[in-house]
This record gives sequence, structure tokens and C-alpha cells, in this order.
Amino acid sequence: MEVKVVNFEEKFSKLEELHSYRIIAQMNDYYFKIVKAKREFIWHTHPETDEVFVVINGELKIDLRDKTMHLKSGDMVVIPQGVEHKPSCPDECHILLIEPTETVNTGDKESELTDTDLEWI
Amino acid sequence: MEVKVVNFEEKFSKLEELHSYRIIAQMNDYYFKIVKAKREFIWHTHPETDEVFVVINGELKIDLRDKTMHLKSGDMVVIPQGVEHKPSCPDECHILLIEPTETVNTGDKESELTDTDLEWI
Repeated sequence: MEVKVVNFEEKFSKLEELHSYRIIAQMNDYYFKIVKAKREFIWHTHPETDEVFVVINGELKIDLRDKTMHLKSGDMVVIPQGVEHKPSCPDECHILLIEPTETVNTGDKESELTDTDLEWI
Repeated sequence: MEVKVVNFEEKFSKLEELHSYRIIAQMNDYYFKIVKAKREFIWHTHPETDEVFVVINGELKIDLRDKTMHLKSGDMVVIPQGVEHKPSCPDECHILLIEPTETVNTGDKESELTDTDLEWI
């Protein structure tokens, strides 16, 4: 694969729809995925992996069972394997996700929010 | 390990020395490491893994054998496994690196620039 510089803002500017995950890079068996979100997500876990959220623009709330975290642009968090979490953003938020290529967005919870239709952008 | 929000700028503000790698997060068997760099690095490869560079602040040049890439704040690049590269920054640049926990900065080239003294910040 050709080695290319990826600019986050440029990738987000090409992504029009909310809640569509797009792959922007791959490192070994991990994808870097972007999503524009404006919704309350469901409680779920990833029983097989940690998951990284990086906020590129906007604000992201992540509820854990014992606390709530508020992330803004320039923040990241690692949700450990098996830890229940519920992301939500009342206003549009631009999120970079880093996780294994086989990770599904809703983890252990099959839902109408489950999205396995991943394309590169 | 406690789940905590990590702010890139805050982590860089705590790191005073140039060319000291500090771990800010771990996802599975990958580290997120930061470094403030102002130097020409050596040609090297990582024969066993891809490597991700994200520029948080400043400008980073990465020479490959067949081209030169210029990264600025908000850019990332994946250097594929086994691809020779030489990063350099004439001015101070704040870089986030993502790579397996066992990856050494100079890859296959043992050098006076080799740094295996990794601490968390």
C-alpha cells in the first residue's frame, strides 16, 4: 500500500453523513476509523479488546458504570477490554477510533445501531 | 488500570526534555508515546511492525527512499513494516507515536540515539 499522509480535518470534510464509520488508515491489524456522531449510543463492551477514542472536534461524553468522562478536542481515552461504556454527544462530534480490524461498533450488543459496512475514505 | 482521559497538550507540557519518549496510554499491546523532537534522525526500519506518527504540534519531515513527506499538526502517517524511513525536524515538533510495546525507536539500527528507557508521564 502507498505510504500517504492523512489529514484528519480533510478526511472529516469528505464525510457527509452522521454515524457512518470510515477507515482512514491501517496499522498492522488495527484500523483508524472516523465518525461524525450526534446521538446517544448504547451500553456495550468489547469483550476481546481495548478501544481508543480520540476527539478531533466537539465534545464526547462517555459513561462508565462508575463514572462519566467528558472529552473535548485533543483528548483521548482507552476503554479497557470488557469495560461497559456508553458514548454520547448531544452536539455533533468528530471522533477518531482505533481498534482491531474485526471490532464491531456495538461490541457485544447486536442493535439497529450496529454498523459492519466499513469503507475507506 | 484506571480509565482516565488523556489530553495531548497537557502531557506535552509536562515533558521538558527533547528526545525523551514518554508513554501516555496503552491499548492492548500497543503504546501511545510522545516525544518532543528537534533533530535529524537516522535511517532505520521496523522489520516486525507498522509504526504510526501523528503530529500534534510543529512540522515533521519523513524521508522514504523514494519520496519525502511533510507532516504538520493534524496529520498522521503509517510507516509500513520494513520500510526504511528517516524522520527529521529542524524546529521543535511534538509527535505522538503508536506502536507495539516492544518497539525500539531506532528499529533495526543500534545507535547512540537508541532509547529504551521508557517511562509513563
